[in-house]
Amino acid sequence: MNEYPSKVLQEAVEAISSLPGVGARSALRLALHLLRQPSENIHHFASSVDALADKVHYCSTCNMIADSEQCGICSDGRRDHSQICVVESVRDVMSIEATGQYNGVYHVLGGIISPINGIGPGDLSIDKLVERLQNQSGVEVILALSGDVEGETTSFYIYRKIEGLAARISTLARGLGFGDDLEYADSLTLGRSIVNRQEFRP
Amino acid sequence: MNEYPSKVLQEAVEAISSLPGVGARSALRLALHLLRQPSENIHHFASSVDALADKVHYCSTCNMIADSEQCGICSDGRRDHSQICVVESVRDVMSIEATGQYNGVYHVLGGIISPINGIGPGDLSIDKLVERLQNQSGVEVILALSGDVEGETTSFYIYRKIEGLAARISTLARGLGFGDDLEYADSLTLGRSIVNRQEFRP
Repeated sequence: MNEYPSKVLQEAVEAISSLPGVGARSALRLALHLLRQPSENIHHFASSVDALADKVHYCSTCNMIADSEQCGICSDGRRDHSQICVVESVRDVMSIEATGQYNGVYHVLGGIISPINGIGPGDLSIDKLVERLQNQSGVEVILALSGDVEGETTSFYIYRKIEGLAARISTLARGLGFGDDLEYADSLTLGRSIVNRQEFRP
Repeated sequence: MNEYPSKVLQEAVEAISSLPGVGARSALRLALHLLRQPSENIHHFASSVDALADKVHYCSTCNMIADSEQCGICSDGRRDHSQICVVESVRDVMSIEATGQYNGVYHVLGGIISPINGIGPGDLSIDKLVERLQNQSGVEVILALSGDVEGETTSFYIYRKIEGLAARISTLARGLGFGDDLEYADSLTLGRSIVNRQEFRP
């Protein structure tokens, strides 16, 4: 007898365990859980996931995922279109939106320059950003990439590309997080926190 | 703007987070992972899962999942059909099969008697087991249910139902697991281990 009592189950387990962070045991548990659900629930699950293949669009302006040609942010007249926040991924847009502190628009790169992973500038939507800036003047570009080497490299590459095209190029403030313990902060962050210290406003 | 930039993404995240042990954050991570895959991979994933709804059969004899009318174990002539191991779920069959120590057949109850969860004897395939025993004599029934109160209750209920129908009714040996520390064993298990002590065979 095969390890799996059913080819169908085996295929489902293999598909589920292809997801990142889901091992064979968890995949089996999830597959057996699904198996216990009514058919219509399984169909609903499968079709909801299947829709990701064809029914998700990418905003023609900012590259964000959307249900139509333009995303909800780019098509929103109340947003400040003179501020473009450059981020790595869809998730970063969602994180920044969740803060409720930003009213500009975005530009999703779709990745970060990473020679180790074989991702070069050509794989990202940098040309599209340059094009946006060529068609619109007086724009502030906020480089909101992660603070690691790859993020810094990408920021620098983009900076060189859009220098002169953007009215202002800024980046996220770096410093101690709220609730962070001074003792455990790395020296680079702590150093940046001191250099960029701000007025104390009680 | 909605929390999700796309209704399609939102529905996929909601479907994925309906799985046990998968929170909204993990679901989003998994959905975005799928989104980055080629369409055909997403279709393959969805159809593999979708097949669980209609393409899995249950063995007409033992209730195990199968790809056809009978499962691979029940239709295997080399298995000992005079030993029926009664288990709670499909997963238990897979666990026992993985030991390679059992050559009989199974009977999958599809649950365990649990008044708290509203599962009574009528919800399990106990009548089907009785029927099997009525049609076959000289059978040993091995009650391989878990050692908790619900398992013991179910074992006892089945015992009363099949008393006289089965040639022998046995249950799994209880005792200290291999590698278990005496100090941390519960007294019930340890007590049972002493009472059912076995010859030392070095």
